[in-house]
Amino acid sequence: MSEKKYIYTFKEGNKDMKNILGGKGANLAEMTKLGLAIPQGFTITCQACLDYFKDPVGFIEKIRTNIMDNIKGMEVESGKTFGADKNALLISIRSGAPMSMPGMMDTVLNLGLNDKAVVGLAEETQNERFAQDAYRRFIQMFGDVVMGVKLEHFERILDAHKKVKGENTQDTDLTIDDLKKIIEEYKILYKKEIGNDFPQKPIDQLFFAIRAVFDSWNTRRAVTYRKMNKIPDFGTAVNVQLMVFGNKGWDSGTGVAFTRDPSTGEKKKFGEYLSNAQGEDVVAGIRTPKKIEEMKDEFPNIYKELMETMENLEKHYRDMQDIEFTIENRKLYILQTRNGKRTPQASVKIAVDRFKEGLITKEEAIMSVDPNIVSNLLFESIDEKKADFSKFLAQGLNASPGAVFGKVIFEADDIVELEKEGDLDIILVRPQTKPDDVHGLFAAKGVLTQFGGKTSHAAVVARGMGKPAVVGAQIIEIDVDNKKFTVKDKVIKEGDFITIDGTTGKVFEGKMPLIEPELTSEFQELLSYADEIRKIGVRANADTPEDARKAIEFGAQGIGLCRTEHMFMDVFRLPTVQKMILAKTDEERQEALDKILPMQKGDFYQIFKIMAGKPVTIRLLDPPLHEFLPELETILLEHQELKLTNGPKEEIKDREKLIAKIRSISEENPMLGLRGCRLGITWPQINEMQIKAIFQAACDLKKEGVDARVEVMIPLIGMVSELTHVKNDLVKIAKEVIDSYNIELDYLFGTMIEVPRAALTAGEIAKEAEFFSFGTNDLTQMTYGFSRDDAEGKFIPIYLQEEIMKENPFEILDQEGVGKLMKMAIELGRKANPNLKLGICGEHGGEPSSVIFAHDIGLDYVSCSPFRIPVARLAAAQAAILEKKKSM
Amino acid sequence: MSEKKYIYTFKEGNKDMKNILGGKGANLAEMTKLGLAIPQGFTITCQACLDYFKDPVGFIEKIRTNIMDNIKGMEVESGKTFGADKNALLISIRSGAPMSMPGMMDTVLNLGLNDKAVVGLAEETQNERFAQDAYRRFIQMFGDVVMGVKLEHFERILDAHKKVKGENTQDTDLTIDDLKKIIEEYKILYKKEIGNDFPQKPIDQLFFAIRAVFDSWNTRRAVTYRKMNKIPDFGTAVNVQLMVFGNKGWDSGTGVAFTRDPSTGEKKKFGEYLSNAQGEDVVAGIRTPKKIEEMKDEFPNIYKELMETMENLEKHYRDMQDIEFTIENRKLYILQTRNGKRTPQASVKIAVDRFKEGLITKEEAIMSVDPNIVSNLLFESIDEKKADFSKFLAQGLNASPGAVFGKVIFEADDIVELEKEGDLDIILVRPQTKPDDVHGLFAAKGVLTQFGGKTSHAAVVARGMGKPAVVGAQIIEIDVDNKKFTVKDKVIKEGDFITIDGTTGKVFEGKMPLIEPELTSEFQELLSYADEIRKIGVRANADTPEDARKAIEFGAQGIGLCRTEHMFMDVFRLPTVQKMILAKTDEERQEALDKILPMQKGDFYQIFKIMAGKPVTIRLLDPPLHEFLPELETILLEHQELKLTNGPKEEIKDREKLIAKIRSISEENPMLGLRGCRLGITWPQINEMQIKAIFQAACDLKKEGVDARVEVMIPLIGMVSELTHVKNDLVKIAKEVIDSYNIELDYLFGTMIEVPRAALTAGEIAKEAEFFSFGTNDLTQMTYGFSRDDAEGKFIPIYLQEEIMKENPFEILDQEGVGKLMKMAIELGRKANPNLKLGICGEHGGEPSSVIFAHDIGLDYVSCSPFRIPVARLAAAQAAILEKKKSM
Repeated sequence: MSEKKYIYTFKEGNKDMKNILGGKGANLAEMTKLGLAIPQGFTITCQACLDYFKDPVGFIEKIRTNIMDNIKGMEVESGKTFGADKNALLISIRSGAPMSMPGMMDTVLNLGLNDKAVVGLAEETQNERFAQDAYRRFIQMFGDVVMGVKLEHFERILDAHKKVKGENTQDTDLTIDDLKKIIEEYKILYKKEIGNDFPQKPIDQLFFAIRAVFDSWNTRRAVTYRKMNKIPDFGTAVNVQLMVFGNKGWDSGTGVAFTRDPSTGEKKKFGEYLSNAQGEDVVAGIRTPKKIEEMKDEFPNIYKELMETMENLEKHYRDMQDIEFTIENRKLYILQTRNGKRTPQASVKIAVDRFKEGLITKEEAIMSVDPNIVSNLLFESIDEKKADFSKFLAQGLNASPGAVFGKVIFEADDIVELEKEGDLDIILVRPQTKPDDVHGLFAAKGVLTQFGGKTSHAAVVARGMGKPAVVGAQIIEIDVDNKKFTVKDKVIKEGDFITIDGTTGKVFEGKMPLIEPELTSEFQELLSYADEIRKIGVRANADTPEDARKAIEFGAQGIGLCRTEHMFMDVFRLPTVQKMILAKTDEERQEALDKILPMQKGDFYQIFKIMAGKPVTIRLLDPPLHEFLPELETILLEHQELKLTNGPKEEIKDREKLIAKIRSISEENPMLGLRGCRLGITWPQINEMQIKAIFQAACDLKKEGVDARVEVMIPLIGMVSELTHVKNDLVKIAKEVIDSYNIELDYLFGTMIEVPRAALTAGEIAKEAEFFSFGTNDLTQMTYGFSRDDAEGKFIPIYLQEEIMKENPFEILDQEGVGKLMKMAIELGRKANPNLKLGICGEHGGEPSSVIFAHDIGLDYVSCSPFRIPVARLAAAQAAILEKKKSM
Repeated sequence: MSEKKYIYTFKEGNKDMKNILGGKGANLAEMTKLGLAIPQGFTITCQACLDYFKDPVGFIEKIRTNIMDNIKGMEVESGKTFGADKNALLISIRSGAPMSMPGMMDTVLNLGLNDKAVVGLAEETQNERFAQDAYRRFIQMFGDVVMGVKLEHFERILDAHKKVKGENTQDTDLTIDDLKKIIEEYKILYKKEIGNDFPQKPIDQLFFAIRAVFDSWNTRRAVTYRKMNKIPDFGTAVNVQLMVFGNKGWDSGTGVAFTRDPSTGEKKKFGEYLSNAQGEDVVAGIRTPKKIEEMKDEFPNIYKELMETMENLEKHYRDMQDIEFTIENRKLYILQTRNGKRTPQASVKIAVDRFKEGLITKEEAIMSVDPNIVSNLLFESIDEKKADFSKFLAQGLNASPGAVFGKVIFEADDIVELEKEGDLDIILVRPQTKPDDVHGLFAAKGVLTQFGGKTSHAAVVARGMGKPAVVGAQIIEIDVDNKKFTVKDKVIKEGDFITIDGTTGKVFEGKMPLIEPELTSEFQELLSYADEIRKIGVRANADTPEDARKAIEFGAQGIGLCRTEHMFMDVFRLPTVQKMILAKTDEERQEALDKILPMQKGDFYQIFKIMAGKPVTIRLLDPPLHEFLPELETILLEHQELKLTNGPKEEIKDREKLIAKIRSISEENPMLGLRGCRLGITWPQINEMQIKAIFQAACDLKKEGVDARVEVMIPLIGMVSELTHVKNDLVKIAKEVIDSYNIELDYLFGTMIEVPRAALTAGEIAKEAEFFSFGTNDLTQMTYGFSRDDAEGKFIPIYLQEEIMKENPFEILDQEGVGKLMKMAIELGRKANPNLKLGICGEHGGEPSSVIFAHDIGLDYVSCSPFRIPVARLAAAQAAILEKKKSM
């Protein structure tokens, strides 16, 4: 039985040893292997951490000699001595698990300092202030991070000293004497809190720190995080590394650099540095950092070395790198390299450039771009560099992305008036929106509501139109009567400008500076790579001809969800729709439906024409009918007012009838009520009208030589008997229409899978359906048993905060629960009907991790709102690449 | 390859050949085998039907000779000749599949008659009217059933002839001449509709009829029914049987008889007969039938034979029999025997008696009683014999069983006043009930509401109290202001008597005669047999000490669901509860909770004490909080009225605050909103108070030497993280309470499984739960995606009518969908935690088929409302018996 190897020097490891050395340790070893100047040191393995927990005291004793041997090695290499008064070896201690994890011990710097070594350091650097400050920081960091003394205790001491010196004193204004006094007070605090003196022996400091890193692996927060993220209990490594200082004098310095411009993606090194400074000084912003190019004059050799290093690192890591470096006495040290953060624009440009430069493959180019951010390229956004964020007014829900500014207007009708006058910069602000407001939404640039969730009427309509929307900003109080809204004591009147950012849900006063979106040629090119690679189709959720046009523009291969309810909500049609609902006789109802038919037919005609040759999945009417009627509350209050004020008898009677009707069709839980196919079963005339409109439109086009590809989708099926009941009648009508044109027309009939029972009995349903489309919005609601509107407003924020949920399941598909139902449905469905086509048309269809899941479980396509199509195309390609990797 | 046997005479089969001969054929064969006088004949097998469909014409030709050989056999046996003019062999043709199935061809009688044979029959019977009427009926039946001529065409002819003779003419008033004219017109109708003359050749009649039976197997209705009921396509048999006539003269007759009294269960033959009559005459009620005992004088030998036959049949079929017999020329024929229908009382008495007489086993006694009906033994019911059903007023939902009459009162407060005056016969009638009305419900004998479903407040509370309730009787229009309600043009004023029947949902004017319930000694005895046999436990859903007492009385082994919300709804507590909800600060809220704690503790104390030694599962607060607040609509209208009438500013302000609060906690879909554990997570103080109350009560009892067995149940879990979050805090508090008493107390923490996601991830949840209790009400709602309140009022009736659903899944557990989730949860749960206890506490826990399902999937217990406990005990025993049979 060979002894386990618990310690590796940086020279012994490489990047593939993450499970042994942790991420940080493996990376330090890798860079050492590349021959870069890395402050040397060693890594105590993850296995050591696990063995430590079995017998903490015994284990530390067991590896003590081993650790000290490695410290010796660092002494030899650096020519410094650990624990010496002069030329002391100073080290940093850092945790590093195989996966990045919050809740673990961070960093202790300057370990090795004590009352004597600080004097030595001052002499060596000729900079006593630097030395004393380093010591102060060490005590604070050690006390806080290693021993658990609350940081605020230290800060209270520091603040007290600063206050004495005046209002705006900075850390840097503290003198050597101040620092010495602070150090003394820190030590007293330490003793009071811990019971012992601050340890003067570096060897004690070292072992305290190592144990603290190990212990941090099992803090409650870390354990919870692992449990939630299903991270195995593989322990954390400990990295012990030589300190280097960029503030040892004017032949020292520190900086950060990117191998390409992180803002534009341009192929040009980009960075900043400061001489005689350490990292914090750059952040503090007291001295203005110099551009990296200036190093050419100041440190010509080092500049050359740095440039070469960066080139090599980018090649080696196959991505743009963000590098931290320090120059200590004219020697360059690389402290860290990582894939550089970049703007969405840069991300795309870098990926395409690097592929063209032959540095990476197409697959790598695709994998290097985060699909989550590319949708931002399609919307206006707030220019963060120029923006004045003190104008912040309120946080709402980010219901439809994009930023926009405009004048606040409270009534839809007023907007239409203003539009006629040519005033287009308008934001509709409402407590909530109703179908009646749609014409205002059409004319406005964006919408802000006080109430409602991401599936509220305003949100859905705005997303459909691609207009920014912030909803449920409950902190604003809207007073429609007096045409103003207030946020705490701030008043915004009608006509005042505000900016809403539907991407973040933020609302600002006035006009914020915006960045125009740009669909660059690189972006188009990247998406063309994605299309070559991806296996899963991408369709759009599109309800109108405008949507369909956008869908085509963004590369949709069809429409996966055409909701017909918005066709009913149109301001000119709504009165007829209401007449249809309120009809007293079948004849009256049919009369109204006969009027609606040509309107719907016209919509379908346009959509089919735009999508010629591509499938269009039309969902029959889904929402509960009371959504088309005025709100009960309004009518009740009107009714009472008329009565109390002796209003016209006729009007009172009208209200009474309307109240009775609304009551008779309103529901306790509309989400679980008379909607979807249930509507079609109880009010079959509506479905029949829709089928006629669809097939007449398709047949007209066919006659004109346009290939309309119809897919009819029946919503909210829970039992196969519902589907057969509805389908049998509709297929008959479809056939009648087609026969009356004397042509042939292929079409499909299918169903949404959005009710848990549909997934559970998918085998039966698949025998009657030609396709399934997973409606993951409803499926999520019913699987979790909570309504999106209520949950997002009320308890999901608390769940996220308390870490009961990792993510909002309406944004990121819940693979464990909802996904399990989907897998079950796919398996049962395909078994019963091998030709079954499978798609997803919930909003998850445009969310990257969900698109990858959709690929993995074998769907044929995803469908998402037009603006998410590029996201889906990219994510779909990533899914194909990931699958290939897994199978390798 | 031996030729298939397509035809069996009645002498060749037996009751175990149902799959070959169909149910009817096998039963006729069995009775023949028993040596009973059965009109003989033969059965064409189910297989013949299937082979017929492969080649209809060819197949009929193939078996023609075979059929005719068997007809020959009947001729030999009967001494009659098929197709002869005199002494013609007349036969009946009936379908008979292995399982009883609607939609199939019924019966053709008198086949073999034609223009000549009818004359022969008249001569033979000396009864021309009889013969002509038999011929008329045959043409009509053949035309309708075999050839598909619409029955109404025949009836129109018949009616016209009757009309000529005056207003109230009966069929029996038609003379021989009338009948002859009708026959002629029937023949003309037949030719017009079918294109050919009515077939005069009996052989043609026979083959038409056989084919019609076969064809009826594949009618759309039959196919749909098979599909829905998962009946295999095994074809139907055809039974060809000799006709016998009880109306051939005064030495003939017909009758029905039961082997025991079907009304009381007494061991005494019971029946009626008529001489010179056929079955229809008994039904027509023109002649009064004689008691079976009178046969002793009229037909002494036959009476003896009949009595012996009945004795034997009861023994042979091991159940009370209902027999049809005919006497033709002093010869007794048994036409049918079947298990006799009986009243619930009789059912129980017969089962116990027969066991005691040694005729059947305990298991058979249990299997012979339908659990669905025994619950009626525990409630008053309308005496159907004495009732005047013309008093019917309205049909509502049968929300809580039992019939009761009382004076109509519209306001809860008025009832309390009347109660003080000693007036107890009161029915509370409300548009809907709210928590404010509970005190009225306590005092009333029953409740009737215009709106609301079976889970509405009134329904739940009434069921809990065991009081009859009819809810959602939408046809009644209540005018609370004017203290009256109307049904169409009928007006019922306050103080008028009505009768409500919560078992059927019917409402009647005035006092209907009622039958008192009786928990007979036989019933007790039968249940004791059930307890010996059943394997699954039976607990009660009980919220109050009264419920708990009832539960014990009916044999509950514990409480499976104690809902705590009703403890909050108590009229004296509600104001405090509202204060708690409306509290502006945590302190205010805590203050209110501190007041509620001792009240809840008192309830728990009583319940634990009553249930000493038996487990009590307490569910923490579940419903959304706005259920405890006044209705928004009411407050809004009050507010507007105050404003319009310049009411006190203070009151207007109060309303405004209340409106804001109600709005802030009201929800779009309360069923899917902030309730269950979500409430406990966002408002942890409520849970904490409840845990304190529970454990203080239990500890107090423990100190007094009473064994309180606490099980705490957390509702609406969808993610294991919810459970751990809630549980960890509560276990800590429970421990604190117990420690403060310085005693030991065992308890369990578990969860409801009522959200689909909980079932899907039950493996994770089981690691954190000591028991699962399936809340099948919510689980059904979420699995189907419809809310019970909305669905039962709006579309479930249509679904049932259109046969989209076989049964209401809120009454009969949906085994295919909801049951699949349950099975999944059990499998995952038991695998992760083998000690997991499993139960069901939805209303299905008291529904027999669901209890059997619960047994089959391996639950440890079912829990149901106290009055359903006897049902559950019986059904549980049946489940155990069925399982044993299956494994044999």
